Amino acid sequence: MYIGFSETETFLRNCEDAIIITHQSPDGDCIGAAFGLKDILAELGIRSRVVCSDVFPSRYDFMTNVGAGEEFEPKTVIAVDIADVKLMGRYTEIYGDKVQLCIDHHESNKDYAEKTLLREKATAACEIIYDLGKYMGINITKHCAMCLYTGIATDSGCFRYDCTTPRAHEIAAEMKRSYDINFARINRYMFEVKSLGRMKLEAKVSELMEEHLGGKLAVVAVTQDMMKELGIGPDELEGFAPLTIQLENTEVGILMREREPNVFKCSFRSADEVNVSTICQTIGGGGHAKAAGCTVEGELDEVKKMLIETVRKALS
Amino acid sequence: MYIGFSETETFLRNCEDAIIITHQSPDGDCIGAAFGLKDILAELGIRSRVVCSDVFPSRYDFMTNVGAGEEFEPKTVIAVDIADVKLMGRYTEIYGDKVQLCIDHHESNKDYAEKTLLREKATAACEIIYDLGKYMGINITKHCAMCLYTGIATDSGCFRYDCTTPRAHEIAAEMKRSYDINFARINRYMFEVKSLGRMKLEAKVSELMEEHLGGKLAVVAVTQDMMKELGIGPDELEGFAPLTIQLENTEVGILMREREPNVFKCSFRSADEVNVSTICQTIGGGGHAKAAGCTVEGELDEVKKMLIETVRKALS
Repeated sequence: MYIGFSETETFLRNCEDAIIITHQSPDGDCIGAAFGLKDILAELGIRSRVVCSDVFPSRYDFMTNVGAGEEFEPKTVIAVDIADVKLMGRYTEIYGDKVQLCIDHHESNKDYAEKTLLREKATAACEIIYDLGKYMGINITKHCAMCLYTGIATDSGCFRYDCTTPRAHEIAAEMKRSYDINFARINRYMFEVKSLGRMKLEAKVSELMEEHLGGKLAVVAVTQDMMKELGIGPDELEGFAPLTIQLENTEVGILMREREPNVFKCSFRSADEVNVSTICQTIGGGGHAKAAGCTVEGELDEVKKMLIETVRKALS
Repeated sequence: MYIGFSETETFLRNCEDAIIITHQSPDGDCIGAAFGLKDILAELGIRSRVVCSDVFPSRYDFMTNVGAGEEFEPKTVIAVDIADVKLMGRYTEIYGDKVQLCIDHHESNKDYAEKTLLREKATAACEIIYDLGKYMGINITKHCAMCLYTGIATDSGCFRYDCTTPRAHEIAAEMKRSYDINFARINRYMFEVKSLGRMKLEAKVSELMEEHLGGKLAVVAVTQDMMKELGIGPDELEGFAPLTIQLENTEVGILMREREPNVFKCSFRSADEVNVSTICQTIGGGGHAKAAGCTVEGELDEVKKMLIETVRKALS
């Protein structure tokens, strides 16, 4: 059942011993939302504990170092930024059918909770939680503000992407007027820094970048031999597809990874207007308009030629 | 003489045939400010022309493609985003002592104009011009808004840096509520895209990255031999110093370029708190807290060792 701020307030003010679940492969938004909500509950005198199927990456320490909360038998189960119970990892079995409140901003939300506060237009779950805290008249602490800013910043690519709402900017403005927070440091850790290993791997991938179709298509193909030489497996190239749309004239980017001999996993990215899901569907794949994929068998050169031809047709 | 919005309004409403000067090596802020002001003057029925000592880079076409303005004998000389007349390039001689109005946000502004509207706290000259336009009750057209957004976004690193004011976020929010602008596309062109050549050069530079002092110092040294091999000169490495502070634990980054045999131009960057200007001053250089430099003579290994030792002392 979908509910609004008023009913959510009633629920939160009357809950006890809450467990707050974040999704697996946690990101800035679900961690920020969980720890931000924990701070809000603390202001109400309600104890809570944040749980996640995976370990929180260390770059989020400034949010998580307050501790996830003491052990207790939960009487309230809350999920934040989780569109589908399957995304709870090992908590799916324990709490999947027991979620009383879900706070989320995904259009694809499966309405699995007893009550769901859904704002599909919100940049981030953190945007909803900030507005909810203000609606409830709760004191947003500095730590809470840091958490909620981080979620808004990470889900919007630091205010770069389409999904950035006017409200996201307004909240950032309000926070900058009200708190002595080193926002630039948060942004540096969220958007700029990488490990030396990651930097060198990006360099190797960049060196493999090819332009086709007059620059409209960028392709990086990484064969098993190349991975052996780099000392990596195909999973270590996860997250590299966006590199393919960094070239100035590129409309479509493809990262090809040879997962088994002559079996290529191809990740497509669209820089702006081209729908790569439609392209991938013509060759047995699918996905979203701006990020899609398919798996193709064949020799590297054949597969690449076929992909280039497919994109050429789609662009014309 | 420093003036406020009221006097600036009087000046603009009464000016005629204005030339608007941008600084050499033009960036998003001076181009956005000049073309944004041109749009505001047009709303007042005043013709103007934008001039720059250098050619506007093509990635700013969406601002400049309206044309710089017809030829006429200027009766009014306005400078935007220019702290010092020296930065006008070939226009310094022609207009350097004739600037009637300067609109700027640099603390270092030399007060060279008859009247200067200076807002040192503003993120960008474009932030001042937006607020001025609103103050004057002028209709900000879509093109004008695109220009002013671009200046605010580029000078703030898309709202990432310290210099991002609450007002910058508020203006972005107002624009997102009022205009049908593809902000994400502007941000992509300003912050994400690069040429294939630039991408491959960054890859080469990344491969030369070294960590020292337990990761607190990152050094890239590019010798003349390496440049020969890459087919580039030292100037083509302009703008690469920020790469050195992308490593996760780095506090100081140094890009060393061998400009002449055994003469190294060293560009220092601070990731956060270390003042690199102070460090560079101890070895004959200087600059700003977060970006400074010096020139050191000697063999590569000697110079590098000396720099590492200097940074070690400064950090301890």
